[in-house]
Amino acid sequence: MDKDFLDKFTNKKRETKGMINIDPLQAGGQLTDEARQALVEWGDGFSVCDFCQGKLEEIKKPPIYDFVHQALPEFIGADIAHLTHGAREGKFLIMHALSQPNDFVIIDKNAHYTTYVAAERAGLKIKIVENSGYPEFKINVDDYEKTINEIQDEQKRKVALIVLTYPDGNYGNLPDAKKLAMIAKKYKIPFLLNTAYAVGRMPINMNEIGADFIVASGHKSMASSGPIGFIGMKKEWEEILFKKSQYFKKKEVEILGCVSRGTAIMTLMASFPFVAQRTKEWSKQVEKAQWFSEQLENLGLKQLGEKPHKHDLMFFESDKLYEISKTHKDGAFFLYKELKKNNIWGIKPGLTKNFKLSTFAANKENLEKFIKVFMNVLGADTGTDTK
Amino acid sequence: MDKDFLDKFTNKKRETKGMINIDPLQAGGQLTDEARQALVEWGDGFSVCDFCQGKLEEIKKPPIYDFVHQALPEFIGADIAHLTHGAREGKFLIMHALSQPNDFVIIDKNAHYTTYVAAERAGLKIKIVENSGYPEFKINVDDYEKTINEIQDEQKRKVALIVLTYPDGNYGNLPDAKKLAMIAKKYKIPFLLNTAYAVGRMPINMNEIGADFIVASGHKSMASSGPIGFIGMKKEWEEILFKKSQYFKKKEVEILGCVSRGTAIMTLMASFPFVAQRTKEWSKQVEKAQWFSEQLENLGLKQLGEKPHKHDLMFFESDKLYEISKTHKDGAFFLYKELKKNNIWGIKPGLTKNFKLSTFAANKENLEKFIKVFMNVLGADTGTDTK
Repeated sequence: MDKDFLDKFTNKKRETKGMINIDPLQAGGQLTDEARQALVEWGDGFSVCDFCQGKLEEIKKPPIYDFVHQALPEFIGADIAHLTHGAREGKFLIMHALSQPNDFVIIDKNAHYTTYVAAERAGLKIKIVENSGYPEFKINVDDYEKTINEIQDEQKRKVALIVLTYPDGNYGNLPDAKKLAMIAKKYKIPFLLNTAYAVGRMPINMNEIGADFIVASGHKSMASSGPIGFIGMKKEWEEILFKKSQYFKKKEVEILGCVSRGTAIMTLMASFPFVAQRTKEWSKQVEKAQWFSEQLENLGLKQLGEKPHKHDLMFFESDKLYEISKTHKDGAFFLYKELKKNNIWGIKPGLTKNFKLSTFAANKENLEKFIKVFMNVLGADTGTDTK
Repeated sequence: MDKDFLDKFTNKKRETKGMINIDPLQAGGQLTDEARQALVEWGDGFSVCDFCQGKLEEIKKPPIYDFVHQALPEFIGADIAHLTHGAREGKFLIMHALSQPNDFVIIDKNAHYTTYVAAERAGLKIKIVENSGYPEFKINVDDYEKTINEIQDEQKRKVALIVLTYPDGNYGNLPDAKKLAMIAKKYKIPFLLNTAYAVGRMPINMNEIGADFIVASGHKSMASSGPIGFIGMKKEWEEILFKKSQYFKKKEVEILGCVSRGTAIMTLMASFPFVAQRTKEWSKQVEKAQWFSEQLENLGLKQLGEKPHKHDLMFFESDKLYEISKTHKDGAFFLYKELKKNNIWGIKPGLTKNFKLSTFAANKENLEKFIKVFMNVLGADTGTDTK
């Protein structure tokens, strides 16, 4: 391999650094200064394992033990917590440990694609609970009961798990998780709540909701470097999910001994005090999201998903922007370019008619800049003064 | 959660930073300056995904595509490469994708514990090929043939995979992998070489060896932050290992869509030019290891494992140190404390009779300091001038 080829892998700068970020995937994962310090301090491979005695989650220095066994369970109202590489790996772990191939898993139509692939990897059959369709795409959790009956009574098959996405990553809808927990209890089926976009943003209490498991994501919603996440769960499942190796008594099979042997756990810990605090201010985030939605609707866009909206993730539809793109010199990329020119990052290149975004990381002043871009772009149509 | 409790998770300093590091787990994972820069630049959650079009390994900016599809396969002489969270996750992926529960996997007695737990997680039955025992603990790969026959002919069961550890993490032995590849071919059984302590330290060419798969570790041997690793493999296995989701055509089931959505991949890339270069100087590492082994043996310690030794991982035995520990005021911890006092890190606290270490990260001058500590400690017994 020649030098020019090799050189391309070093000194890569991140082009979007410092931009106003409304990317749903990134808005909750921006690091705190504390996490940035932790990255450098604990960057070397396996440095968190300096004082390990055979199990990552039991390391006392740095205080991973207290973090995993005390801070995380308390934070999300679960009996216990265990680290994973992320929410998707948590979902697979739960499905793999709980089920036999060809069992059923029931998931909501709004589920993230990783819920599907986790189920496929575990050899499960997937049954979908549909949403209400355009424009709200709501999940009615009562429909789970019908689906359970269909599988158990008509097909005589086992439902190993039901999964609900809370909120989903497209519309930011928050279905009635408590009600579904009661249905799950009635049928004695374990219930997993995917909170990748909830834990770290909004208050979540697993035991109050009544779920058996939740999965959370550090890089999505807890100001952490990826890959890192965790499972919160009821104590009663621990022996099934985290059974020990028959060869190595300390090592848990489903996490292959230790999961997060790297810096990511240190960023999750370092950001945690900040993250715990910000969830207390969730009502302000909701207020900001609703204000923003109203502003864009005033410009002729339509917010899909639940209304009034209760989460920073939002989906918008705009026929007008799509019409503009047809004749604009930059075509479908005009909106992306216009935002970039204004130092705003997060709407995928090429989208105009439908796009999702998050108001989580941007403050009102930033969002006003965003709205201004839309006012300018739509100016001719709305008659708004763009100066 | 009160402030004092929360405060303990931030501003954690790594006590061992800057020490001479002979920890086998850490010696190959120390970051380059380029990797340290990458950590900070790409630390925010999901920042590598800025320009993603649905698949991490196809991202062109930063150049993950070229790295995974060109640099890595060329570097390890494989047809193709795919990222994983580490060597253990690579082993599980291969086992899970290739086998049915209750198939057999044959592994060497010197295998890392994660080979066992990966097989357990995949529901496989494990059959061990024993080593030669004290003092060399060598694996004779001919023994695999006997074991294959035993399972296939006598028990009429399927051997889904054979695994060889190259080198193992205790003794640093390098068994005859080429010969085992020929045996594997003869019986048409896929062959996985665990190179977590090889790739990134020494030259490895998978196709020349004749293996079907190798697994490698970024945080163990490629100057990277964890968790990151990769699988190298023959093209013919790609459809089985990386089959696409039936629901999302771009997404590969066994990696749950995307693996390394974080900074670890950026550190692996940033360190790669340096790592590629250092493997060319492997003969110097071997010379250094042999020199070191000779020095310690001159002091009365005994190096176990293959001799002359061909890897930086080494295992020593010392009855004398053990005898000293019995009467020393610091007891079993005296050696650890003595080394720490001399700014040397890596022999586990409490070990004196048997310990492993790596000479990979330490230069000769550093190792001379280490030897000096041993000379001092053993002074009374050896009569060596300790001044």
